[in-house]
Amino acid sequence: MARFMDVHSGMVGATEKDFRMAHEKDTAIEADEGVHFERSWLYPQTGKAFCLSTGPSKEAVLRVHERAGHPAAEVYEVPVEVS
Amino acid sequence: MARFMDVHSGMVGATEKDFRMAHEKDTAIEADEGVHFERSWLYPQTGKAFCLSTGPSKEAVLRVHERAGHPAAEVYEVPVEVS
Repeated sequence: MARFMDVHSGMVGATEKDFRMAHEKDTAIEADEGVHFERSWLYPQTGKAFCLSTGPSKEAVLRVHERAGHPAAEVYEVPVEVS
Repeated sequence: MARFMDVHSGMVGATEKDFRMAHEKDTAIEADEGVHFERSWLYPQTGKAFCLSTGPSKEAVLRVHERAGHPAAEVYEVPVEVS
């Protein structure tokens, strides 16, 4: 299982409620692809969003977002984490 | 206190050790600016890195990275988080 960060660019003006609903669409189907979305963040002014997930591949992460109706613009595997 | 995600683009080929050292440079001085770096992630192949932090302003976050020697290419306030 690998860790990924994906980036969305088009959620301009999305509210916290919109974002929560989008996240729920992802989490409702994520298990089909072996993906789990851990945390997601939104910058409403420009519609930039970041999602941290684990899963088997970039493609699996992208498929979940695609099927949920909000495809990601970019996805990066992030094997290194510090905290 | 607000939450921020910043993005670096030039850490190509950085190892986990390099990344940890960079993070330690940030955390050594972050208190000067009222910033705290919570978690950071690296995609070594293209040198893309993401840092999640809290702090008083974008400028404060950027100043810590600048002073630590690895300026961020982008920074976004992310007031909305879901998990």
